[in-house]
Amino acid sequence: MSEPIIKSKKTQREINGIPTEVVCTEFSNYIFVVLTQFGKIGTLVSVTPDSRSNDISTTPFSTKVLLGKDEPMTHVCAKNLAMFVSQEAGNRSVLLGLALKDSSIDTIKEMKEVIKSCQVW
Amino acid sequence: MSEPIIKSKKTQREINGIPTEVVCTEFSNYIFVVLTQFGKIGTLVSVTPDSRSNDISTTPFSTKVLLGKDEPMTHVCAKNLAMFVSQEAGNRSVLLGLALKDSSIDTIKEMKEVIKSCQVW
Repeated sequence: MSEPIIKSKKTQREINGIPTEVVCTEFSNYIFVVLTQFGKIGTLVSVTPDSRSNDISTTPFSTKVLLGKDEPMTHVCAKNLAMFVSQEAGNRSVLLGLALKDSSIDTIKEMKEVIKSCQVW
Repeated sequence: MSEPIIKSKKTQREINGIPTEVVCTEFSNYIFVVLTQFGKIGTLVSVTPDSRSNDISTTPFSTKVLLGKDEPMTHVCAKNLAMFVSQEAGNRSVLLGLALKDSSIDTIKEMKEVIKSCQVW
């Protein structure tokens, strides 16, 4: 048997007083990131770099809610949290599970740091 | 900080000569199971117990392909692999990532054993 193909890391941290768990798992075609403040997998969103985009003024990422409530804020958070992961991971798509009590800008910023601490790509 | 909420186990085994990896992760509302023979997350399927079903002759589970190719065989495999997980996990839904080279009945049977060895529910 070769080395395990699937790499996974997880951590937990209090963000703004709320216990937050992060799990990052690397697949060859996807990075799977779960951010949960409820223990739930939450809303599942795919964030995909759009290779067809030639317009530099638009963000070349498309987001799609696969599971859960499809709200505008979810797409904003998902892009904000997952774009740097995709870019760092050689433009792989990101599958994101979001179950957040608090999605303020400061919290999202701190969450990006927590995701970085679970880097598997 | 309390105990981690998210429990996760993974293993790898050769099934019918093919290196196979399994990752099981427990969320409060979902069990997430990845079965991969390619290192990919593969086709993502949700398997949900159908609480409305009163007809005992039909299988009270609905399957939905969230990501990837929607083929009849995927639904069959997904039900076959995930139903016992859902039942054992108090009728939680199962989110299943399937990237299989071989989906023969014998292989599926053996995969169920591997999933059992990664029981997180």
